[in-house]
Amino acid sequence: MSDLIPIGQRAKEASVALSKMMQGEKNRILTECANALMDMQTDILEVNARDVAAAREKGVKDSLIDRLLLTPERLKAMADGLLEITALQDPIGEVLSMKVRPNGLTIGQKVVPFGVVGIIYESRPNVTADAFGLCFKTGNAVILRGGSDAIHSNCAIVKALRNALRKNGCTPDAVQLIEDTSREIVVEFMRMNRYIDVLIPRGGAGLIKTVVENSTVPVIETGTGNCHIYVDEFADFPMALSIIENAKTQRLGVCNACESLVVHEKISREFLPLLMERLLAKGVEVRADERACRISSACVPATEEDYATEYLDRILSLKIVDSIDEAIAHINYYNTKHSEAIITKSYENALKFLNEIDAAAVYVNASTRFTDGYEFGFGAEIGISTQKLHARGPMGLKALTTTKYIILGNGQIRE
Amino acid sequence: MSDLIPIGQRAKEASVALSKMMQGEKNRILTECANALMDMQTDILEVNARDVAAAREKGVKDSLIDRLLLTPERLKAMADGLLEITALQDPIGEVLSMKVRPNGLTIGQKVVPFGVVGIIYESRPNVTADAFGLCFKTGNAVILRGGSDAIHSNCAIVKALRNALRKNGCTPDAVQLIEDTSREIVVEFMRMNRYIDVLIPRGGAGLIKTVVENSTVPVIETGTGNCHIYVDEFADFPMALSIIENAKTQRLGVCNACESLVVHEKISREFLPLLMERLLAKGVEVRADERACRISSACVPATEEDYATEYLDRILSLKIVDSIDEAIAHINYYNTKHSEAIITKSYENALKFLNEIDAAAVYVNASTRFTDGYEFGFGAEIGISTQKLHARGPMGLKALTTTKYIILGNGQIRE
Repeated sequence: MSDLIPIGQRAKEASVALSKMMQGEKNRILTECANALMDMQTDILEVNARDVAAAREKGVKDSLIDRLLLTPERLKAMADGLLEITALQDPIGEVLSMKVRPNGLTIGQKVVPFGVVGIIYESRPNVTADAFGLCFKTGNAVILRGGSDAIHSNCAIVKALRNALRKNGCTPDAVQLIEDTSREIVVEFMRMNRYIDVLIPRGGAGLIKTVVENSTVPVIETGTGNCHIYVDEFADFPMALSIIENAKTQRLGVCNACESLVVHEKISREFLPLLMERLLAKGVEVRADERACRISSACVPATEEDYATEYLDRILSLKIVDSIDEAIAHINYYNTKHSEAIITKSYENALKFLNEIDAAAVYVNASTRFTDGYEFGFGAEIGISTQKLHARGPMGLKALTTTKYIILGNGQIRE
Repeated sequence: MSDLIPIGQRAKEASVALSKMMQGEKNRILTECANALMDMQTDILEVNARDVAAAREKGVKDSLIDRLLLTPERLKAMADGLLEITALQDPIGEVLSMKVRPNGLTIGQKVVPFGVVGIIYESRPNVTADAFGLCFKTGNAVILRGGSDAIHSNCAIVKALRNALRKNGCTPDAVQLIEDTSREIVVEFMRMNRYIDVLIPRGGAGLIKTVVENSTVPVIETGTGNCHIYVDEFADFPMALSIIENAKTQRLGVCNACESLVVHEKISREFLPLLMERLLAKGVEVRADERACRISSACVPATEEDYATEYLDRILSLKIVDSIDEAIAHINYYNTKHSEAIITKSYENALKFLNEIDAAAVYVNASTRFTDGYEFGFGAEIGISTQKLHARGPMGLKALTTTKYIILGNGQIRE
């Protein structure tokens, strides 16, 4: 028997206690957990420095080192994150509707925790506190499996949280970290249907693919974003330019950044030179189809693969289309069902785009960068779902809950 | 390339057209489909007779033959089922809430079809028309993979439906049947993530296990039901007896039938003789723990395995417990998260049971047999989900939908 079974058993047991905990109590303990992180600041930063040094030695690239690195400010942000969660309304326990059937049975749908949530993530140690906070607030026990690069940081953070839980009369098994960083253990983790109710992978495309392909536990797929902006024949040019610049360059490495443009043929001759001027000034390379390359020599010829690529870099693909239908077909074929935008002044085309694009978030005249739990007003985010089951788009506290029917009778039997 | 890819492509294409179809049009076509089933009655019954004969020859057992068999009445019920679906409110297109953010972005959550639904089922040919009707009403294309025993019946039903669709100007690919009944094809079907948005298995425990373990497409697990009734120390005896008799014997082979009893020790001496008298009169065998066997010699000793068994037969397991906590722990350990009931006059124990039992449907003083889309007032049922993701309990039309965020802006960019 591997070490995972006892971890699963303890999480399941903890989840029973957590599901009964009242909101005030959960908030009090979350506040104590935030304090504990600040109290343990020296220890956490010290072991994080060791993780960072080891990663540097291994030749891990700078952008990943930056994700791994904790600073006093980042640790403070982590603790503040827990405090922010205390301000959110706890969704648990609400009965969504309660109706009386003709036979007198009263049936309602009650919001309840999942039970045990599994999170598989990569190098960011802030996910550790963040995922715990959201799961705890929704009465779920969480089992974390972070990346090997951050193992010492994650251990220190979890230790601080568990101590705070214990001191405050709560089971420390509300949060557990799998310390074994081997690959075999992840596969076993993904098949613990008896103990884990839902698995949420957070990380790059490779990690998510592995989880989707190997997990027997139900998964919420979070996402890669090959996000498009379609510049319609009726677009307002200054608006289009401003939105494209924002969606591509405001932050490069995020899933809601724009990766591909689709431009209507009718305006392409006029629009492309303006676009290229704007993008080149920002150092963005545009990989475009033949027609676009003929209009602007600044474009680089695109391959088929470019249209399927999430660059997370100063690169954009571009395609010219002859109709909004062609634009929609192109986007629905290549997108990852994340965020898509149309820039148009046409009522008809705006509605058509909203209706026919298959994605978690469909925009008219706004930047795709808004697909985010905070921007959507949820006050938190456990990830952005790109699947259609259970939750789609930014996930707040509610995505960490399920429901059960409660039925009140007075002796009813079925005829 | 296997035959499945073109089936997937055609379904995906059909789903685009279906997602745009208006409710009135969908209802008109469903009515025509119901008529087509009645028009083709002779053909359908004829090939069904062949399926039944072949199954008899193979030595298939009577209860399965009965599931396979179509009669003029059953065919009429199938057609009526489609007509009933026309009376239900189409959930598609509703925007669940639309709110304005501080920056003026207007964000709403729109109900949309999944796209393509895959159904894997066993011998009941009525699932063929039923699943099509529910998917069609919710704007989904459906790919069906029925059992090999019913293949000719399913082909004839799908042919009738597709002809009716074609004649009425709708793409026949709204419903497709996988005619290859090999096992290899099912495995491939379960991994067509590019074409299938959700997979719903309908059938016995073996089928569902296979799908859960092999599918990379998101699955809605439907269910086996190891349903319990807990007779509390404060139970009303006549009510308990009537509910137990109903939940066990009103229909044996269904997932919401009671399979196991839990009885409080304090009332066991008084209650068990009454219970045994009632159940023996109905020919029900009770497999019980030692304490119960000492009280009633009519009980048969239970093994550990009995408590985990969904009998679907005139057999019940029984365990005596010393407290409601022990009852809840026992049920949460052995149940399949389907339907559980308490019989009690105690407010406190009723609330405790409702709060702490982990199942799709939790009852106070009523028969577990009510867990059903029709009994819950949904007017339809595609299955009963025993998982926590997306849908839990009886699933009506809404369970066949997802949402997408629609965001209306006027040039917003992220700072």
